[in-house]
Amino acid sequence: MRAICVLGLGLIGGSVLRAARAAGLPAWGAADVADAEAASSAGYTATADLGEALRRAREEDALVVLAVPLFAVDDVLRQVAEHAPRCLLTDVVSVKEPVANSVRRIVPAANYVGGHPMSGTAESGWSASSAELFHGAAWVATVDETSDLAVWREVAALALACGAEVVPVAGAEHDAAVARISHLPHLLAAVLASVGAAGGPLALSLAAGSFADGTRVAGSDPELVRAMCEGNGTALLSVVDDALGKLGAARGALASTGSLGATIGEGHRGRRAFDAARQARSAQLRIDLGAPGAHAALAALGSQGGRITAVDGTTAFGQVPAADPAP
Amino acid sequence: MRAICVLGLGLIGGSVLRAARAAGLPAWGAADVADAEAASSAGYTATADLGEALRRAREEDALVVLAVPLFAVDDVLRQVAEHAPRCLLTDVVSVKEPVANSVRRIVPAANYVGGHPMSGTAESGWSASSAELFHGAAWVATVDETSDLAVWREVAALALACGAEVVPVAGAEHDAAVARISHLPHLLAAVLASVGAAGGPLALSLAAGSFADGTRVAGSDPELVRAMCEGNGTALLSVVDDALGKLGAARGALASTGSLGATIGEGHRGRRAFDAARQARSAQLRIDLGAPGAHAALAALGSQGGRITAVDGTTAFGQVPAADPAP
Repeated sequence: MRAICVLGLGLIGGSVLRAARAAGLPAWGAADVADAEAASSAGYTATADLGEALRRAREEDALVVLAVPLFAVDDVLRQVAEHAPRCLLTDVVSVKEPVANSVRRIVPAANYVGGHPMSGTAESGWSASSAELFHGAAWVATVDETSDLAVWREVAALALACGAEVVPVAGAEHDAAVARISHLPHLLAAVLASVGAAGGPLALSLAAGSFADGTRVAGSDPELVRAMCEGNGTALLSVVDDALGKLGAARGALASTGSLGATIGEGHRGRRAFDAARQARSAQLRIDLGAPGAHAALAALGSQGGRITAVDGTTAFGQVPAADPAP
Repeated sequence: MRAICVLGLGLIGGSVLRAARAAGLPAWGAADVADAEAASSAGYTATADLGEALRRAREEDALVVLAVPLFAVDDVLRQVAEHAPRCLLTDVVSVKEPVANSVRRIVPAANYVGGHPMSGTAESGWSASSAELFHGAAWVATVDETSDLAVWREVAALALACGAEVVPVAGAEHDAAVARISHLPHLLAAVLASVGAAGGPLALSLAAGSFADGTRVAGSDPELVRAMCEGNGTALLSVVDDALGKLGAARGALASTGSLGATIGEGHRGRRAFDAARQARSAQLRIDLGAPGAHAALAALGSQGGRITAVDGTTAFGQVPAADPAP
């Protein structure tokens, strides 16, 4: 039973602490005074002394989970370097390459595998955290040819204990994908909310389902959204260009032929592909984490939209989308 | 008790027929054979013979409700001109100026006031219709200085009987507002779904709340979405330019300074304005529909985000957002 030390007890970190303890793992956390007190009052082991939490992690060989916003990562890593420089380390930050670069620079001896649970709410902070936040969600655990798969297995085991399914993927591939399906949605929600509000009281009075859904995430804490999107700026820039190209093409078609058929048809097919991807995955497979080619097998599973649903000893058990039936 | 004749029994028309009968109004409908049979099987009076339904409307001086997609409006209006050329007439089509122009051209003697209930689901057709669809929703009833307010009152009474609240607004103002809060959301949802799906199985496997919400309406019937957006092409074009400008500005800021603060901050304020607009409206007012200035008073109420919540004799009772308390 690997102990868990969570640094940062906001929505995600707080939920990791709750879920880990609910799964029976020894778990404690460190956070700012307000969150640490709130967690303590709720019966969890939490301190505002980061060094104390990290020294205990070193003594108990815990998995340290970095759960602070990207702009605070370097500061916290310097504490890790001071108190537990060789620890097992993961994170739950929404971008993976910048965190991996910081870890290499600041805590080079740490045994690090990046993580990212794909869950959230419009709320933030310890008060919004929940042991159920990750149930059924995807939880990325990064993998490339240099990854230590024993460490990867520890991170996957935590994600599974929290009720998530594990998606193995290279950091850069993760960052490109989340720019598309998480950071662009936040940016488009902001643009839509701005354009809608510019219509004044009448427009907001008439706004209903499509506007409410399309702008929901614009209600999230703008500083957190900003940090998340800006932290993945390079990947996001390329995806924003895709969106500008498609929206510009729609504009051109509307102004010339008056037709939005191509835009709306392609969007409808995209949404149907998303719905189909959420259907049952049925092809089962197992990956021996000690075998040659295990790294590539994990990455291939993630790329195909597969998930690891259990780990046992040195074996990972997964599911990948079944091939389409013959036409 | 004004009788109601609904032409078209899809999601909206079917829901009007159900809600009107639930409110105790004499009501019947006409539709294509499939929807007419489905409505008849459910115990409603429905026919596939448009002429028959319209002749009854003329005999009973019913309010005729045009509930077909924009592309079918002219054909159905020709039937109205043949069978009930002087009827009370309204519609539930998502754009108002093009319908008003068709009515003036094809049924110039009709007593017409445009309507638009701001309700919908991703589903369509009679099978998705419901007597509760309009509960608490906004229902536009167009007004300008030439409107016959006795007809306007009949349309408002139907909307109120269906459980909606009435927003009086000029047709062109309606079309500009819905371009912002209904048609642009559909277009951005299509763009987002396309860009997301272009990320392949990995991106769709990682997609969660923000992508699911932002693309929900891309799951709607693409032909209906297309007809709705293209039918409001002129107003939509100007709003798409606003969105392109804001998304382009975000792209420029990201590429130069790396900051998305302006975009995300403005979006957050827009969403908060939307949330605030949904709070209780508290200033009450009454408008004498027979008094000079009634047209302007109705239009002003709509422009301020107000709603008419009852009509009685020749008086309309409404609510407008209370002025902000003094700072």
